[in-house]
Amino acid sequence: MRTALGEHALLERLRRLVRNPPPWITLGIGDDAAIVEPDRGTLTAISTDALIEDVHFRRSWTGPGAIGHKALAVALSDLAAMGAAPRASLLSLALPAGFPVEEFDELIQGFAALASSSSAALVGGNIARSPGPLVLDVTVMGSVRRRRWLTRAGARAGDELFVTGSLGAAAAGLAMLESAVDSSALDEPERECIARYERPEPRLRMGLVIARNRAATAAIDLSDGLADGARQIAAASRCGVVIEAGRVPMHPGVGRWAQRSAADPLPLALSGGEDYELLFAVSPRQRRAFEAAAKKGGKPAVTRVGRLSREPGAWLEREGRLEPLGEGFSH
Amino acid sequence: MRTALGEHALLERLRRLVRNPPPWITLGIGDDAAIVEPDRGTLTAISTDALIEDVHFRRSWTGPGAIGHKALAVALSDLAAMGAAPRASLLSLALPAGFPVEEFDELIQGFAALASSSSAALVGGNIARSPGPLVLDVTVMGSVRRRRWLTRAGARAGDELFVTGSLGAAAAGLAMLESAVDSSALDEPERECIARYERPEPRLRMGLVIARNRAATAAIDLSDGLADGARQIAAASRCGVVIEAGRVPMHPGVGRWAQRSAADPLPLALSGGEDYELLFAVSPRQRRAFEAAAKKGGKPAVTRVGRLSREPGAWLEREGRLEPLGEGFSH
Repeated sequence: MRTALGEHALLERLRRLVRNPPPWITLGIGDDAAIVEPDRGTLTAISTDALIEDVHFRRSWTGPGAIGHKALAVALSDLAAMGAAPRASLLSLALPAGFPVEEFDELIQGFAALASSSSAALVGGNIARSPGPLVLDVTVMGSVRRRRWLTRAGARAGDELFVTGSLGAAAAGLAMLESAVDSSALDEPERECIARYERPEPRLRMGLVIARNRAATAAIDLSDGLADGARQIAAASRCGVVIEAGRVPMHPGVGRWAQRSAADPLPLALSGGEDYELLFAVSPRQRRAFEAAAKKGGKPAVTRVGRLSREPGAWLEREGRLEPLGEGFSH
Repeated sequence: MRTALGEHALLERLRRLVRNPPPWITLGIGDDAAIVEPDRGTLTAISTDALIEDVHFRRSWTGPGAIGHKALAVALSDLAAMGAAPRASLLSLALPAGFPVEEFDELIQGFAALASSSSAALVGGNIARSPGPLVLDVTVMGSVRRRRWLTRAGARAGDELFVTGSLGAAAAGLAMLESAVDSSALDEPERECIARYERPEPRLRMGLVIARNRAATAAIDLSDGLADGARQIAAASRCGVVIEAGRVPMHPGVGRWAQRSAADPLPLALSGGEDYELLFAVSPRQRRAFEAAAKKGGKPAVTRVGRLSREPGAWLEREGRLEPLGEGFSH
């Protein structure tokens, strides 16, 4: 069934699909604006991100539930990188003509499930017609405590870089979808790569625990890959950066896929975007506190992948030699 | 000159075009999220709105500066209707390939000028490529005081409806642009209609003053016209509504244009959207306080246009007779 439901009818549908707002939502969906009270005496972190059809996803590869999940995950990942606790989200949708109402429901359910599990209650948004692609614009807000938040700019030469989890999975998953490989021919770690591409998990707990313990000097989320994230921290902190090739934690599916497609796995891990892991800079004196806090941050574990240097530039150290670090991922 | 500047270069350009953040912006543009502290002990109102090329505007009719202004004005109008004081804004842009860099600058300047004059500091956003139309998604946040905010739902039968300013100007202005009339053939009030369509002024001060004085039972902004706004207040407040045709304040340009184009001016004022005036419901006992507060709210003045009724439905009273009130404006 294709629908020609108007904005009011879709908003009503959306309202019914989203329930049980948490106590800090004073007024939710349906009025001119929502009223939110993150925490008394705390600061509000706020960020916005867009997911655009045929730029960030293809509807033929990614189902509506995954698109809804991912749009929110991408925005929440920015809050994770600030050390903020999510409190509310807004979704602005531009829908192509004849967008099926079942897909609308699935999309909202994908969004709402993650909103609920991550305490990012959907409090409002906008629905408009699109003469072109499907567009999802998500704004998230969270609360942070005074002097307990992380920017990209606090690092210094001598700090070490740590990354959460493993890298390259989302890029490998995207490559699998692009090559239209038969998924029954893939093994389990490879199928995990597709799941990581479709439903990334923002590292909210890890970001929050590291920030609350003041256990890092800088942080960023790896939306555009490790090389880009490392460059951004180095640029904002006015120092250089070295990534150690041998230390980069590769997702097991990446190696399998690289073998199968006769590709080099390292670029997938360095420049493949959309893993949404976190990269932290940690000063030598914070090292112990960082490792203790990271344990409290739960799975996945963190891995040391490089260091910030006095010498400018961005470098890859491979078998004891420095070579220029490649560029990041551009959507 | 057409540009192929990447996201980083455009963000840097945007940062340079936006300066002097107010004191409640703890961390502005450029990191994973912004950190904002609206007011100690107050609540945060938050809203999002989209402006989509060929749905909400045409680039051949509306210059980039006006598009930037309007995208923010539309979002701020929702804060005005809540009685919130703007504090920060976020802009998510989807740019078609080859969008000229001069137009990008003009668009940002149009946005930034209104952000500055309305205290809605631009604190972040997103820039992505669009395979289709230009899309602007704006999120605004503002602060409200406890029990000093306005919803659509607080009105009761017997309350009177008041509207700010005059109506129909934006719809008449749009009709002038659509008919590609030579603007030198238009008189001054008609040219004002085009200006109102292109650069609406959100009624922030009026909304704030009415809310702080608890001088209304409900409020909404007239993004989709008077008929739609009146229906929305009536539906949310579970009562009926009557609009008195003879009292609807018409912009002087609307009558001139209606004469010129042999059209009926009343539908433009009732159902023409995008005036972004405010509609208030006022109880009989609030009437004096409302009129005193509205004076403090400054220009434009308010006009009584109707009433909420015990009988359900939405009605237009014309020459003593009731007829069904038409539908609102749909983008």
